[in-house]
Amino acid sequence: MADLDATLSQADSNLDDSIDRLTQLVRIKSISTDPAYAADCRKAAEWLVDALNDIGFSAGVRDTIGHPMVVAHHDGPDGAPHVLFYGHYDVQPVDPIELWTNDPFAPVITELTPGRKVITGRGTSDDKGQLMTFVEACRAYKQTHGTLPCKVSILFEGEEESGSISLQPFLDANAEELKADLALVCDTGMWDPDTPSISVALRGLTGEEVTVKAASRDLHSGHYGGNAANPIHILASILGAMHDADGRVTIPNFYDGVHETPDHIKAAWEALGPPKGFLEDIGLSIPSGEKDRSILERCWARPTAEVNGIVGGYTGEGFKTVIPAEASAKVSFRLVGDQDPVAVRENFRAFVRQRIPADCSVAFAEHGTSGAIQLSYDAPELAKAGAALEAEWGKPAALTGMGGSIPIVGDFQSKLGMNSLLVGFALEDDSIHSPNEKYDLRSFHKGVRSWIRILDALAS
Amino acid sequence: MADLDATLSQADSNLDDSIDRLTQLVRIKSISTDPAYAADCRKAAEWLVDALNDIGFSAGVRDTIGHPMVVAHHDGPDGAPHVLFYGHYDVQPVDPIELWTNDPFAPVITELTPGRKVITGRGTSDDKGQLMTFVEACRAYKQTHGTLPCKVSILFEGEEESGSISLQPFLDANAEELKADLALVCDTGMWDPDTPSISVALRGLTGEEVTVKAASRDLHSGHYGGNAANPIHILASILGAMHDADGRVTIPNFYDGVHETPDHIKAAWEALGPPKGFLEDIGLSIPSGEKDRSILERCWARPTAEVNGIVGGYTGEGFKTVIPAEASAKVSFRLVGDQDPVAVRENFRAFVRQRIPADCSVAFAEHGTSGAIQLSYDAPELAKAGAALEAEWGKPAALTGMGGSIPIVGDFQSKLGMNSLLVGFALEDDSIHSPNEKYDLRSFHKGVRSWIRILDALAS
Repeated sequence: MADLDATLSQADSNLDDSIDRLTQLVRIKSISTDPAYAADCRKAAEWLVDALNDIGFSAGVRDTIGHPMVVAHHDGPDGAPHVLFYGHYDVQPVDPIELWTNDPFAPVITELTPGRKVITGRGTSDDKGQLMTFVEACRAYKQTHGTLPCKVSILFEGEEESGSISLQPFLDANAEELKADLALVCDTGMWDPDTPSISVALRGLTGEEVTVKAASRDLHSGHYGGNAANPIHILASILGAMHDADGRVTIPNFYDGVHETPDHIKAAWEALGPPKGFLEDIGLSIPSGEKDRSILERCWARPTAEVNGIVGGYTGEGFKTVIPAEASAKVSFRLVGDQDPVAVRENFRAFVRQRIPADCSVAFAEHGTSGAIQLSYDAPELAKAGAALEAEWGKPAALTGMGGSIPIVGDFQSKLGMNSLLVGFALEDDSIHSPNEKYDLRSFHKGVRSWIRILDALAS
Repeated sequence: MADLDATLSQADSNLDDSIDRLTQLVRIKSISTDPAYAADCRKAAEWLVDALNDIGFSAGVRDTIGHPMVVAHHDGPDGAPHVLFYGHYDVQPVDPIELWTNDPFAPVITELTPGRKVITGRGTSDDKGQLMTFVEACRAYKQTHGTLPCKVSILFEGEEESGSISLQPFLDANAEELKADLALVCDTGMWDPDTPSISVALRGLTGEEVTVKAASRDLHSGHYGGNAANPIHILASILGAMHDADGRVTIPNFYDGVHETPDHIKAAWEALGPPKGFLEDIGLSIPSGEKDRSILERCWARPTAEVNGIVGGYTGEGFKTVIPAEASAKVSFRLVGDQDPVAVRENFRAFVRQRIPADCSVAFAEHGTSGAIQLSYDAPELAKAGAALEAEWGKPAALTGMGGSIPIVGDFQSKLGMNSLLVGFALEDDSIHSPNEKYDLRSFHKGVRSWIRILDALAS
């Protein structure tokens, strides 16, 4: 504990220099979507390599068909776990530039409200400020101990804001080198300014397109209405039957692999409540979906079946009394736990086929599958990271989920067989992707301290 | 009866001249959609005026903002009914001209199969041949008796194939002059080559567009899926609930004003059976719609609720995991009997509103209403015309319906308060609107004789 305190003190002493280094990194215009900034992206990668080598990592720039990766390694004590830290050095474009109060690449520190200092500039929160919390944590640890508590590898990509086209091939080509016991990802946010968060559940996805075909051509509804099958009716009936009155999905075996969330987690979610204005901000007030589940449970731990698009017949201006030959819908399933994305597809198809009249037909098209990510609530690393965050912030970490997927986490899982611990310090008002993106210096400072505590805890 | 036989004999003697006159009329290129043929349209109108004046009508060309109308009047005996005969002298374009075996405006008579002579040319069936059956019937009657058995007015329009834009204003402006006891319309077909037909029921229509609105903007289905109302689900559920398992429409009070078809009519329809290949030709085999009703009853005497178009969310290539802000559908109701088109609209709206969650909304847009046309099965003119046709063809006339509406019949009903008797002699293989349009000389000859018998019967 004395050792940990010393490391944390070192981080405190470093703070001004740490902020200075973050400022240097933010000054580099590493906009990945715009080819005009390709050299800046490389410059950011090289800056990071220098910073990591300076700390004692063995770091290098690794070329891809797009922007380069940064890969770094640092040994740890025998028997200590091996972690792979992930972040991205590329940033969003800055338009509309006229809404910025300062040059987005000349970051300034201001006091937002009394005592609340923030650094404003593109990438301060997403993701340069966040990844630097980890880099500076390693620096303080190294300064204090001459080594790191775990074996630490680092992967920074430069294409996160532009589609990550190089990422999967890079993971495939370097799987042996990058595989660790656990991935640490710092690209998420706090639950609120005082409550740290670990994202433990990310929903998966099965995407599917269904086309119901009836007559061999569009028909006049006067001549054929009442006798010829209408594929819109068939499709609407099927989609309308996909949920029961309690909001549960009615597709047989759909809930196979869905596990009940432990009571203490559910209770914690009830206590957190939904984010302020979650439905109100979009003009709604009544949670739809499964009865007797909280909003957070529905979003994080329950699967869904959603129609994302539907089309059939005449949809232009005015009116046409047609019975169309076909109608189609795009349907997606958000998956949790151990739901098999392929089985979900097959079960859906069977559900549909059963409802197609004998003289009609149905065609399906796949639109991707990805399994859900679920860190076990009993995982020791979760307990350790949670305790570390609680020690730093004085409040238990919220164990949260995410309604959607984060591709990198799925890739780490599928390509490297590695769980991810998602811890981040961004705040709701950070304006990521928008003008005047900022990062609280408190997030930065306590973020550094949080990673020191987490690395220390994971090693124990 | 001796008198009637004399008149029919006169028609028989006239036949070659009648065909010659029809040929003259067909030679006039009265294509109404193409402004290049405007003078031809007027020429056709003038030709008809001359022909009618020649018979003894008081006929004239009446200008409109489009092509002219022909209006003619002939007195009848005191106390005799007043009928208004309707036909149209304009024809469809002739493209693709290369598929014609003769010049469409130089009609030729050929023997299609041994003993079956047809006249081929644009408008021979639709509608010049048909309207000439009535004109030649009047001619034979006048030749035989020096007068006509009924007071007869005639209205020929020249815009039926191009939208009839002048018709409603013309009916409004000349209602007093055109109103009769009964309209006779000759623009329909035989049930089959041996079975004459009277169309007694035409379905009406209520068109409606419904838009379900949920969130104030499109949502990400990962973040909001399971909590935010999906308007496609709401719409699909509503449309899916619009029919029960027996194919009946579930909207409360929807069947108000629907009368059961008399058993003897139903039995006759069962005996007629559906048109050959009715479903097979469009790739279907199982009649959908109301259980325990024949195909013909469903098409002619039962109302429908059909979705003619639906759209919501992402409908382009690929996939987008969106929960859309809104989804909409176009719905039409085919109406029969005394269904009130406005009440149908209101009942549908109530049905929808009841199923909209409290935090969502719905908007409607009207797309027209027209009531059904139903000639009473007990109407004396129906019995008279039916007997007349049976006497001519040796088979009872099929009392048929039409699944769609014929605007002129609705206009006669709504603007002139007049029922219409729809009798026509076209055959399924007449290729109307297509290359090599033809009219059987048997249809023409027996059509003339049929109108002689009908006029005679109506006067008795």
